[in-house]
Amino acid sequence: MTPTEEMNGSGNLMDFLDEPIPDVGTYEDFHTIDWLREKSRDTDRHRKIASKSKESIWEFIKSLLDAWSGWVVMLLIGLLSGTLAGVIDLAVDWMTDLKEGVCLSAFWYSHEQCCWTSNETTFDDRDKCPQWQKWSELMTGHTLGAGAYLLNYFLYVSWALLFSFLAVSLVRVFAPYACGSGIPEIKTILSGFIIRGYLGKWTLLIKTVTLVLAVSSLFSKYSKNEGKRREVLSAAAAAGVSVAFGAPIGGVLFSLEEVSYYFPLKTLWRSFFAALVAAFTLRSINPFGNSRLVLFYVEYHTPWYMAELVPFILLGVFGGLWGTLFIRANIAWCRRRKTTRLGRYPVLEVMAVTGITAILAFPNPYTRRSTSELISELFNDCGALESSQLCDYVNDPNMTRPVDDIPDRPAGPGVYSALWQLALALIFKIVITIFTFGMKIPSGLFIPSMAVGAIAGRIVGIAVEQMAYHHHDWIIFKNWCRPGADCVTPGLYAMVGAAACLGGVTRMTVSLVVIMFELTGGLEYIVPLMAAAVTSKWVADAFGKEGIYEAHIQLNGYPFLDVKDEFTHRTLATDVMRPRRGEPPLAVLTQEGTTVEDVEALIKDTDYNGFPVVVSRESERLIGFVQRRDLILAIKNARQKQDGVVSNSVVYFTEDAPQLPASNPQPLKLRRILNLSPFTVTDHTPMETVVDIFRKLGLRQCLVTRSGRLLGIITKKDVLRHMAQMMNQDPESIMFN
Amino acid sequence: MTPTEEMNGSGNLMDFLDEPIPDVGTYEDFHTIDWLREKSRDTDRHRKIASKSKESIWEFIKSLLDAWSGWVVMLLIGLLSGTLAGVIDLAVDWMTDLKEGVCLSAFWYSHEQCCWTSNETTFDDRDKCPQWQKWSELMTGHTLGAGAYLLNYFLYVSWALLFSFLAVSLVRVFAPYACGSGIPEIKTILSGFIIRGYLGKWTLLIKTVTLVLAVSSLFSKYSKNEGKRREVLSAAAAAGVSVAFGAPIGGVLFSLEEVSYYFPLKTLWRSFFAALVAAFTLRSINPFGNSRLVLFYVEYHTPWYMAELVPFILLGVFGGLWGTLFIRANIAWCRRRKTTRLGRYPVLEVMAVTGITAILAFPNPYTRRSTSELISELFNDCGALESSQLCDYVNDPNMTRPVDDIPDRPAGPGVYSALWQLALALIFKIVITIFTFGMKIPSGLFIPSMAVGAIAGRIVGIAVEQMAYHHHDWIIFKNWCRPGADCVTPGLYAMVGAAACLGGVTRMTVSLVVIMFELTGGLEYIVPLMAAAVTSKWVADAFGKEGIYEAHIQLNGYPFLDVKDEFTHRTLATDVMRPRRGEPPLAVLTQEGTTVEDVEALIKDTDYNGFPVVVSRESERLIGFVQRRDLILAIKNARQKQDGVVSNSVVYFTEDAPQLPASNPQPLKLRRILNLSPFTVTDHTPMETVVDIFRKLGLRQCLVTRSGRLLGIITKKDVLRHMAQMMNQDPESIMFN
Repeated sequence: MTPTEEMNGSGNLMDFLDEPIPDVGTYEDFHTIDWLREKSRDTDRHRKIASKSKESIWEFIKSLLDAWSGWVVMLLIGLLSGTLAGVIDLAVDWMTDLKEGVCLSAFWYSHEQCCWTSNETTFDDRDKCPQWQKWSELMTGHTLGAGAYLLNYFLYVSWALLFSFLAVSLVRVFAPYACGSGIPEIKTILSGFIIRGYLGKWTLLIKTVTLVLAVSSLFSKYSKNEGKRREVLSAAAAAGVSVAFGAPIGGVLFSLEEVSYYFPLKTLWRSFFAALVAAFTLRSINPFGNSRLVLFYVEYHTPWYMAELVPFILLGVFGGLWGTLFIRANIAWCRRRKTTRLGRYPVLEVMAVTGITAILAFPNPYTRRSTSELISELFNDCGALESSQLCDYVNDPNMTRPVDDIPDRPAGPGVYSALWQLALALIFKIVITIFTFGMKIPSGLFIPSMAVGAIAGRIVGIAVEQMAYHHHDWIIFKNWCRPGADCVTPGLYAMVGAAACLGGVTRMTVSLVVIMFELTGGLEYIVPLMAAAVTSKWVADAFGKEGIYEAHIQLNGYPFLDVKDEFTHRTLATDVMRPRRGEPPLAVLTQEGTTVEDVEALIKDTDYNGFPVVVSRESERLIGFVQRRDLILAIKNARQKQDGVVSNSVVYFTEDAPQLPASNPQPLKLRRILNLSPFTVTDHTPMETVVDIFRKLGLRQCLVTRSGRLLGIITKKDVLRHMAQMMNQDPESIMFN
Repeated sequence: MTPTEEMNGSGNLMDFLDEPIPDVGTYEDFHTIDWLREKSRDTDRHRKIASKSKESIWEFIKSLLDAWSGWVVMLLIGLLSGTLAGVIDLAVDWMTDLKEGVCLSAFWYSHEQCCWTSNETTFDDRDKCPQWQKWSELMTGHTLGAGAYLLNYFLYVSWALLFSFLAVSLVRVFAPYACGSGIPEIKTILSGFIIRGYLGKWTLLIKTVTLVLAVSSLFSKYSKNEGKRREVLSAAAAAGVSVAFGAPIGGVLFSLEEVSYYFPLKTLWRSFFAALVAAFTLRSINPFGNSRLVLFYVEYHTPWYMAELVPFILLGVFGGLWGTLFIRANIAWCRRRKTTRLGRYPVLEVMAVTGITAILAFPNPYTRRSTSELISELFNDCGALESSQLCDYVNDPNMTRPVDDIPDRPAGPGVYSALWQLALALIFKIVITIFTFGMKIPSGLFIPSMAVGAIAGRIVGIAVEQMAYHHHDWIIFKNWCRPGADCVTPGLYAMVGAAACLGGVTRMTVSLVVIMFELTGGLEYIVPLMAAAVTSKWVADAFGKEGIYEAHIQLNGYPFLDVKDEFTHRTLATDVMRPRRGEPPLAVLTQEGTTVEDVEALIKDTDYNGFPVVVSRESERLIGFVQRRDLILAIKNARQKQDGVVSNSVVYFTEDAPQLPASNPQPLKLRRILNLSPFTVTDHTPMETVVDIFRKLGLRQCLVTRSGRLLGIITKKDVLRHMAQMMNQDPESIMFN
């Protein structure tokens, strides 16, 4: 027998999809998909198209189109996310500024755009161009004084409340899932769980990343295959982060490291393409008006010195502690929200938090402005032209140096008052971030976390700088910090602190560092960034292995099998499988002899997702597995369309119909919905291996056998339950991972 | 039964390692490892340490040490690779310069170090400091004239021949495997194949990356577990690339994308740490004397324009074509070397190629210098102080501009002669790289490939620049290139070309772009780099999916199951399994009743790696799998140490000894070498799924059953053979991947 003959011969064994029963092979909502089955279905489709493609030129062109549709989808995703990000960036800019004032020449301009064409030459004057008016100026004609301040304050809070009311209403009415960062949900969906409402068309309008469904539904290849759809979603996540931060590579790595579950190299490559297109589109729109993709571009003029590693590592420790505190406090608060009456008034909660935030934020200049502006200022090095309060150093009047080469100087009063305000801003940001993340509005935690770190970093940076200036004869400074030299860059400390805090919360590693240097262009500072990231992860991991996304997944009870947890207990498959000792035996079907009535009774009495099919109840030798949903659909279909199928028709899963007396009603053949290659393990298989198999192959369930006899079944939920149980029983095991 | 009881109960089932038989569980050379088994063994070890750790403080400390040993190994690897790379960088610098001259004050100084302390202030003068003498100057006192030129020429060729003779001799005598780039071998080893000599102590001395074995053998955790060892090796590969190019993130991604097979997130994280330490160590050694990790630091002063994407994409096409040409020609040449008499004279081949290279390289200034110097010059932007021939532009005498802002100018005679020399150098590099890669000396292809691309890119860049200067009224230039403006940067084209050519050869994507911008600091140019990388990969993939490393793996016939190839044929497990129809039945053992003699005969008559154990020959119900090597060792051990075990002792795999007449010799219990959880699939399982299982779980073999009966076996080699067969049968299928 040649391989071709074998193929044809075996083809018949697989023809269960040839006579399609409507909806067979789809999933119910809140169910887990079977990766292997989805993959196999896609191959089926491929093969059909490939064999047809030789028939005519039209079919050949269709096959080519199919082969390229993946790239087309990526192109569309890239273009759309780039455009949407551009629009969102512009809108955010405008709305942030609207809280403080309005552009008279055109109300839809942001402060910067409004003053763009202004004739004033210095930055300071341009900031105060006549077209842009604060609310108090517009309404009362005054810009200074208590009255103007109070009016501005009142309007700031009112706008904030209005915006948040709009946001929470939009979310509640149109897209109940578009709240929080969405990353825990995307992670769960990517791991193979169906949340149908989540990727709907209304969510699309509210949240960018979910545009993927609309795009991929254009192509039947993606709309009909849950596995393929997840590949597209991974790429869309990459494109989303790519444009959110202007970090194309960082976006791809974030999708790989944090979000995705099944990430073959092909997806890496396509994500890369989507991220490229998205970044390129965004750059063409050019929302920041500086032809740069980079959100917080920095340029430092001094290298870093070995001794500075000490404060950098301290910032890493701070980041780790912040991560731990944030995750514990945020989860505790979210659990409270879930379990108490608080959860019943989400709009009220959002309004209350917004009100408090706005009231506390306005008086402090570092919290009043938008968080990205704050980060940008904290990252900045103090050049000679900088007018910020943070750069209020005492100048040496005798100094005539080029613009960029400014030595360390003593801090002026502006810096000291900035330090106090920053310390207050730090506390404020820490508290508010804990309560905000998880509310019923779309919100992320990248920017707030980075802000916390940047504030702490800048404070440390200024402290080190002043210490080096006043004590340059100390041993630690002696070697690298002579008087009159520029040796400490406080902005670099802010950057390192931001990385540490972001790392502590999300536990990203490689993608974190890449995002940080794509964000800042600070490629020279890779070692400080890495050192802070490593320290922060170690410290945070010492208090608990979970990042914020995993913590939220667990809080929401999504069935997510984390690839990061290692399972090292010595339990065996037999300890986990159902039925346990004393439980009723496993609900199985026999390959022949059951009637339609019996099957329907079994379906009614149990709520299992599927049933193993055995040769006979005596031998218990396994021949396959049938899905509950497929069984229901097939019987319904047969009862409607197939003559002679009645309640006492015999159901059979074998190739040939069983020999029956002539008086019997027509039997029902169900072989085509039978999965002839169910996954089996022996009862002696260590659970470690079973967990590995579930993770790597994306299984829904696995049958347990001993010497060929069916003993039981293990589902994904059994595995998750067992893992949680073992983890609680022996928390020390974390140490050994 | 509580979970704890279950655990204890089941613990007994797994105690086959409790009475260790020497060497049981190890592998023979040129065999494939079983990832699941290695993983399970490591968990065993963990559990033992963890349970002991509660006994005494000393045991607790030991358990802590064990938990941290992974990090310690990473630290050591990072330190060692950083140091070695520093030493190698210095040595390479010195030896490259030795071909042209010598330092009189200290012969072990390179040209740069020799002139470091010289008093001359300009770069040009410093280059000609009196301590550094060319060979002709030293020997004859002349630096100019035909005689001096010929003498220098002769000595250049002689030194090259001497160095290559030393290299090839070292390799032949001490480390037969330390030739080529080593990446194909590392890939194969990481996929789970044993090449014992490869990672030996002599290779260690010659090739840096292999230091991993020496380090990891310090820790029994790693020396005794083939799976754990591969994790360390992945990290070492990351550290190696990290220091070779000063690209820590790029190194980690390279290891992930190109080299590694099994790369859990934990390894990503540890690799990152090792790469960090290595980069940091290298920076402390500071071999390039500029405090930068970056090998080819560039700083361009102009952004790129949309219209420039056209030449960038053309460079991508060139890169793809170069990749295809290189892979085909190099593989053809290597196959010729393998199959003809050529392969018998490796030393002669190396000497001949070196001789020809040196003779052809000397007259052309762009091939005479070291390739990294060449790349560095090609990447460079022409500043006002640049003295290179490539920067010989006609200056406008009326111009008084700041140093960095030089507008486009007409090319001078130096540029035109440089163009000719570069074109010749391009042809030379293309030809020589094809013949060099794969010779019996350690050699890579990153730098030569980048050189090819950089030369082509610079030529294109100069062409575009001159076109824009002379025809700035053309529509394509009109919008962005006014006269007197600096609009085209030829160095950027060189960078893009280098990325395209490297991508065409290796098919890297994300890691390529990261390496390129870590190499150059050119974060602003991510879109051009990505565009060129995408184009180059598409073009090269259109002619064949394999990168150079996969091509060499296939050429050498290593059993490597590539994660990148997709298997989309509709064959089933039954088509691939042995025995085929008509072949003798599968060699199996029964769980009881076989004698020692029978087993020994089976071992002698067959050469299978292991044998399935069934309940009885009649029922053929599978209970486990036993490794050939373990069986041999166990019987040998029993015959030596266990009284009463003779040739006609009965061998049994059950829990309890079978009931035997008293006259029978003592039976031999072999349950502890029996794997009770062998991997099984049904005969109806699509090969697509089987291939997936082999890849993702790293299996050695898999048993095939139908309704619980054992039908046959599929080994990794069967899978590889079948995949090759299917690929040849239907080459069109590549299109649909």
